[in-house]
Amino acid sequence: MVGAALGTKLVQQKQEVMMGSRTANNDGAQKWLQSVGGNGQIGTFAEAAAFGEIALDCTNGANALAALRLAGMDNLRDKILIQVGNPLDFSKGMPPSLTVCNTDSLGEQTQREFPETRVVKALNTVNCEVMINPARVPGDHALPICGNDAPAKAEVARKLSEWFGWKPSNIVDIGDITGARGTEMYLPLWLRLWGAIGTPVFNIQLVHEK
Amino acid sequence: MVGAALGTKLVQQKQEVMMGSRTANNDGAQKWLQSVGGNGQIGTFAEAAAFGEIALDCTNGANALAALRLAGMDNLRDKILIQVGNPLDFSKGMPPSLTVCNTDSLGEQTQREFPETRVVKALNTVNCEVMINPARVPGDHALPICGNDAPAKAEVARKLSEWFGWKPSNIVDIGDITGARGTEMYLPLWLRLWGAIGTPVFNIQLVHEK
Repeated sequence: MVGAALGTKLVQQKQEVMMGSRTANNDGAQKWLQSVGGNGQIGTFAEAAAFGEIALDCTNGANALAALRLAGMDNLRDKILIQVGNPLDFSKGMPPSLTVCNTDSLGEQTQREFPETRVVKALNTVNCEVMINPARVPGDHALPICGNDAPAKAEVARKLSEWFGWKPSNIVDIGDITGARGTEMYLPLWLRLWGAIGTPVFNIQLVHEK
Repeated sequence: MVGAALGTKLVQQKQEVMMGSRTANNDGAQKWLQSVGGNGQIGTFAEAAAFGEIALDCTNGANALAALRLAGMDNLRDKILIQVGNPLDFSKGMPPSLTVCNTDSLGEQTQREFPETRVVKALNTVNCEVMINPARVPGDHALPICGNDAPAKAEVARKLSEWFGWKPSNIVDIGDITGARGTEMYLPLWLRLWGAIGTPVFNIQLVHEK
């Protein structure tokens, strides 16, 4: 769902997009391709990783590492990987727990396993409708991003602005990839706030003393 | 530090306050008592729990259950306990990890061990200066609270407004005590946001679609 939403928005922005799946002719990927009028491509995870200048990891976080292994270390070498997913485990019912947290994170696991890929954790603190259209939420609101590679983070901030309309001043660099513990562990609160607010189309704004 | 800050503010609000410690003549408690010009009382955890109509647990979260056992189940029976602390473990250096998270929380552990106490998790998402003076942060900003006892949560919301000036509309009920997983697991992100913003005197505001 997240991959389709982002892929569609990127096609609308005239980007060349290849949606990767476990199989080249994945049913969901074919439906997505039809939905964008053929203005995209589909392929295996490896083909998509080789195709892209920037890779977007929109997999279910619990399966992210398995999907990235299929994408292949060589295909992702030196590239920016924007990791959107959270390591949520729904197998034991609601609310989901995290498959990794506290002293590690999916972002860190990914950067450790793909040391030559420039992993940037971003967009994982908002619903996919907010990811691709932050103006759905009125006013200013914050998007924390993190990663070990400062130029990669700056490039991601530019792309999030260009592709989706995120105001650069609302993108908050929270430091190295260990910050992924913070943004991933925010999800249990995010789920409760969704319940209290009544819509997932919300976000947090940071307010502080002058 | 948190207990002294809240105790001082409550004394200023003409509340009768007893600061509890492991020993009746604890040095820190005596210093606090001097700082409020003698307009308070100090005692053991058990004496303070017996004294108060409402108990504020401002202990280091990692030691909260030990302190509450000293306070005593009988002294806390039927009372509202506002738990302010987070289960942060600084023993392995910075950043701290949590001693409990993901499938449990300090709030839940406390409610399970003190089933006849009305545990409300609150204030644990902001710095103590913001707790006692939310106007330090300009505009509206949110305070999530949770607990199993709805009248207790409503009473806590009234007290946070009366004592500290929290606007009732900014106090967000996120449900039962399992919501403490959410607010406690927010701490790693909170610490990173502090680093990015440069002051701990900040908070989050919730913004959402109309």
